[in-house]
Amino acid sequence: MIYLDNAATTPVYPEAAEAMGRVLREDFFNPSSTYPGGMRAQNLIREARSSVAEALGCAANELYFTSCATEADNWAITSGFKNKHGNIVVSAGEHACVYECAMHLKSAGLDVRFAALDRSGRVDPGDLVRKVDENTCLVSVIHASNETGAINDITSLAAAVKSKSRRALFHSDGVQAFLKTDFDLRSSGVDLYAVSGHKVGAPKGVGALFVSSKVHIAPFIYGGGQESGMRSGTENVAGIVAFGAAVRAYKSRFDPARARALYERLVSGLYEKCGAAVIAGGGHGTYMIAAVTIEGVKAEILQSVCADEGVIIGRGSACASRHSGNRVLEAMGLTKKEVDGAIRISLSPETTEEEIDVATDVISRAAEKVRGRRIG
Amino acid sequence: MIYLDNAATTPVYPEAAEAMGRVLREDFFNPSSTYPGGMRAQNLIREARSSVAEALGCAANELYFTSCATEADNWAITSGFKNKHGNIVVSAGEHACVYECAMHLKSAGLDVRFAALDRSGRVDPGDLVRKVDENTCLVSVIHASNETGAINDITSLAAAVKSKSRRALFHSDGVQAFLKTDFDLRSSGVDLYAVSGHKVGAPKGVGALFVSSKVHIAPFIYGGGQESGMRSGTENVAGIVAFGAAVRAYKSRFDPARARALYERLVSGLYEKCGAAVIAGGGHGTYMIAAVTIEGVKAEILQSVCADEGVIIGRGSACASRHSGNRVLEAMGLTKKEVDGAIRISLSPETTEEEIDVATDVISRAAEKVRGRRIG
Repeated sequence: MIYLDNAATTPVYPEAAEAMGRVLREDFFNPSSTYPGGMRAQNLIREARSSVAEALGCAANELYFTSCATEADNWAITSGFKNKHGNIVVSAGEHACVYECAMHLKSAGLDVRFAALDRSGRVDPGDLVRKVDENTCLVSVIHASNETGAINDITSLAAAVKSKSRRALFHSDGVQAFLKTDFDLRSSGVDLYAVSGHKVGAPKGVGALFVSSKVHIAPFIYGGGQESGMRSGTENVAGIVAFGAAVRAYKSRFDPARARALYERLVSGLYEKCGAAVIAGGGHGTYMIAAVTIEGVKAEILQSVCADEGVIIGRGSACASRHSGNRVLEAMGLTKKEVDGAIRISLSPETTEEEIDVATDVISRAAEKVRGRRIG
Repeated sequence: MIYLDNAATTPVYPEAAEAMGRVLREDFFNPSSTYPGGMRAQNLIREARSSVAEALGCAANELYFTSCATEADNWAITSGFKNKHGNIVVSAGEHACVYECAMHLKSAGLDVRFAALDRSGRVDPGDLVRKVDENTCLVSVIHASNETGAINDITSLAAAVKSKSRRALFHSDGVQAFLKTDFDLRSSGVDLYAVSGHKVGAPKGVGALFVSSKVHIAPFIYGGGQESGMRSGTENVAGIVAFGAAVRAYKSRFDPARARALYERLVSGLYEKCGAAVIAGGGHGTYMIAAVTIEGVKAEILQSVCADEGVIIGRGSACASRHSGNRVLEAMGLTKKEVDGAIRISLSPETTEEEIDVATDVISRAAEKVRGRRIG
C-alpha cells in the first residue's frame, strides 16, 4: 500500500508507539497522585511539553495539551467573545473545526465575519483587514490550508490586524503547518496557535493550544485543575508522551529540500501523465500537500479506483469527505467541475521517489479508466 | 508493589493495551476517510461503542465518546442552562469536574444551588428536592462518590426531581459506579451519565457521555461532525477501541461477591490492626472504595511511608490531592482531624486477599511509626 493521505492522518511513528506502550505498561499512574508513580507520570508530561513547545518555538508554560486540534481551535474561537460583545473575523479557508464553531456562534446571534480567499487559496489580506474594526475581539486565519497546502503569512496578517484593533487576539490553526513550514511562533505576533499530534506521527487523541503569555483566555474545561487549571481532566499521559516522541522523530526526519523535490516530482509527473493541474500550494504553500484537479474525472471515483490498486489518496478534508462539494475550494472561485475533480495528495517524511512514481502511474491509469467509463 | 489506588486510575488491561497497539500498527487511518482503511477504523469505533453501551444498558446511538469523564461532565453541566435562565442543583458531594464547572457558572452570575450531604456521604434527598423548583433545568448527583464510595440512589432521586420540575435534566457522574454497581441505566430515569475509561482498565484519554434519546442537548465541540455532530474532532481511535476491550475484560473479571469479601477483609483488618474507622461506603456503597480515617495519623505522611514500603494508597480524589482539606469529607460533617487522617483504599478485580493482608499490615505499622514520630 502506498499511503498518500498524510494530511488526514499519518501512520504512527514506532518511537511514538513504543513510548505509548511503555506508559501503558509501566507508568499508568495518575499524574495528579502525589506518590512516586504519579510524579513519574507528571515528569513524562513535562518532558513531552518541552519537546512540543521547543518545536513550536514557545515556552512550555504557554502550551496546553488538549484531546485534539479541534478542541484547541474551539477553545480559541469561543475565547474571542467576552460577554457576547464585539465581533470576530475568520477566513473563508478555515478547517471545519474553526468554521463550524464560528458558524455556531453566528447562529447564536453573535457578529461573525468571514474574509474572502483569493484564487491561490490564501486569505485576501485586504478583505481581512477591511472586516476588522476596533470592536474585533479575535481573528482566525489558518496557517497552511488542509485543502491545498496554501500558506497564509500569519505574521504579517497578525501585525495588520493589530494595527486596526489593538484588543484583537490573533489565532491560527497550525495543524498542517506544524513542523512542515519555516515559522517562528515567538516573533510572529500570533496569540493562539493550535496543533495536532496525529499529523506528525503521534496517535489520534492529542493536540495542543499555544496561548501566548501576553494574553489571557478562560479555561476550556473545569475540574481537577490539570494543565494549570486551563484544561481539566485526567491527562492522556500515553498520548501526550507519544506526541512528544513523535515531534522529536518528525523533526529529525523532515528535510524541506527533499519534501520540495518530491512535491515537484509528484505534480510534474501528474501533469505529464494525465494533465492534472495544481489547484494551489507549491510556490506559496507547504510541499506536503498537493491539491490537483483532473478534468473530467470525478475525484470520488478516482480515489476508489486508486485504493483498489493500493494507492491511498485524499479528497480534501477527511472530516468533510462525506459531504458533496468543497466549501474551501468553492471559496477560492473554482468551478464545480474543478471541485469535483479535486484530489489531495499529501506526503510524509517517509514518502519515497519510487512511491511517487508508482502513485502517479496508478492515478493516471485510473483517470484514464474513469474517463473511459464515463464516455463508454 | 501493591497498588490500592484504583479509584484514581487502574492499571491498563493487557486486552486494552493489545487492542490499542493493533490500531496504532494496522488501523491508524482517519475514520472520516472513505477508503477501506477509514471504514475499518469506523467499524472499530462502532464495535467499541456497542461494548460500552451494552455495559451501560443504553443504545449505541445514545453514547458519545469524549476525551475523559471531566469533559463529559462539563458538557452535561453546561447543557443545563439555556440562555442563562433557570437554575441548576448539584450535590455537595460532586467530583471536581462537576463542582468546579458549577462554581464557574455560579461565578458568572448563574443560579447554582448545592444540596447538602449526610454523614454517610450521600446527598440529603430532602435538601436536594427542596432546592429544586419549576425553573430547575438540571440536577447533578454523583452516582458513587470518588471520595467514599457512597452510592446515591439516583433512580429514586431522578424520579423525585422530575416530579417537582418536569423540564429538569437529571445528570449523574457515573465514573466510580460504572461496572462496579448493579444499576440499570435504561429504567433509571437518568438523562445524562458520564463514564471514564481509565477507571476500568482502559488508558487515560477516553470517556463517554450517555445522552438519553428522550432529551436533546447542544454539541460540545464543533467541527468535522464526528460523534454524530455532537463532539467533533478526529476520534481517539486507539483509546476508544481500548475502552471497548477494557469494558469487556472488566465485566468478565468483576465478581461483586468477591469484591464485598475483600472490602470486608480490608476494613476489618484495618480496624483490628490500627483502629481505622470507616468513613462511609460499605452498607450503602461500592465495595471498590474504602475510605477510612486513622486517629492521630496524618494521611499525607502515612501515604508516603506506605509508598516507601511498596503499598500505594490514595487520599481522596487524586485531582485534589495537592490541596489541603477535603471539600467532600468536610461537607459530610467530618472534623478536621478526621479529614486529615482520611485515606482512600480502592480495589480492582485483580486485588488479592494476600495483597489486602500485606497492605493492612504495612498500613498499621506505618500508622504506628507516624504516631511514634509525632509523639517522639
